[in-house]
Amino acid sequence: MSARGRFITLEGGEGAGKSTLLAGLRGHIVRHGIDLVQAREPGGTVLGEAVRAIVLDPAQRGMAAEAELLLMFAARAQLVRELVEPALARGQWVLCDRYADASYAYQGGGRGQPAERIAELERWACDGVKPDLTLLLDLPVATGRARAAGRGEADRIEAEADAFFERVRAAYRARAAAEPARFRVIDAGQPAERVLAAAVAALAPLLQEAAP
Amino acid sequence: MSARGRFITLEGGEGAGKSTLLAGLRGHIVRHGIDLVQAREPGGTVLGEAVRAIVLDPAQRGMAAEAELLLMFAARAQLVRELVEPALARGQWVLCDRYADASYAYQGGGRGQPAERIAELERWACDGVKPDLTLLLDLPVATGRARAAGRGEADRIEAEADAFFERVRAAYRARAAAEPARFRVIDAGQPAERVLAAAVAALAPLLQEAAP
Repeated sequence: MSARGRFITLEGGEGAGKSTLLAGLRGHIVRHGIDLVQAREPGGTVLGEAVRAIVLDPAQRGMAAEAELLLMFAARAQLVRELVEPALARGQWVLCDRYADASYAYQGGGRGQPAERIAELERWACDGVKPDLTLLLDLPVATGRARAAGRGEADRIEAEADAFFERVRAAYRARAAAEPARFRVIDAGQPAERVLAAAVAALAPLLQEAAP
Repeated sequence: MSARGRFITLEGGEGAGKSTLLAGLRGHIVRHGIDLVQAREPGGTVLGEAVRAIVLDPAQRGMAAEAELLLMFAARAQLVRELVEPALARGQWVLCDRYADASYAYQGGGRGQPAERIAELERWACDGVKPDLTLLLDLPVATGRARAAGRGEADRIEAEADAFFERVRAAYRARAAAEPARFRVIDAGQPAERVLAAAVAALAPLLQEAAP
């Protein structure tokens, strides 16, 4: 019987380099002989991708913040039950591009929903599944938006003003400060190889525990 | 300044005749000089229609019951904020094809989600908005399904087995029994004009209060 797997999440604003880091981290973990499942949020399941399409659709500009939160947690409830929990139980590791912290940052910081209200939904929806390690790619908003600008038409979230993303960043940093044992904040303004090295260092204790 | 409007909901299983009754009731209320807004659930808003498409999509057969509940309440949170609350505040009446009771019936009775868990989401999402009157069109499952059978391909909910709809019906009846002041149970096996007459009788006290 295999030990329970580890759940690692990546968080960060637009243009922070999550995709590049995910690819590098994936290779690093797999080279340790670990069976890894990768996911993204919202999305990662048939339901999640459908929810993602709604949440990013510019036609949904009238969406209430409460409705947005419930949608995000619908995708998350599905991801936990369909993918994360079964994988961890089988001993696989799960590397996820965003998870519940993103709701505290985007719907909490960004849209002003109270953290306690978000925590209620997290308790309701996530079946107690918390990341073992969360890597926060931190970057000044202007730098991130400049990097992300070349990616085509802005979706409903990307179309928000800078002040929105400043609040997102502040909320992310506040969560990291409140849970230092789980979070590692990485300066995403560094070259990609140094970002990866910082992430690899943060992962080292978990990989060491998992060594046969 | 106009008085706050009234919120009337229609509940019932497949083939109970909700659409026919809605049309008749609408005419009756409007003839009393009342400004009426009609809605349906899920749906009734741009977001709700998108959620409705997901919930009914046969491709979403792997949807977790928790995710389904969160989606339904996302649509409901939007409906309350975008349509129901503003209309009631303006003094309009709102006639809605299904509301929160449907979650207790379908996701609660049908899918076995505990009523207390559903009540948590209702408190979270619905901003305290409760119907003034709920008309439950009650019908034996076999009768309702036979009536609904001619309507083309079954959606994800309609494709459920009879036992699912028996539990939905039982949950609806239990809610009506628990809140007799709000609910009126109408035998939907009667001819349409008698169903309408029963609904009109149930509405009479509200219309009397609203008379100038």
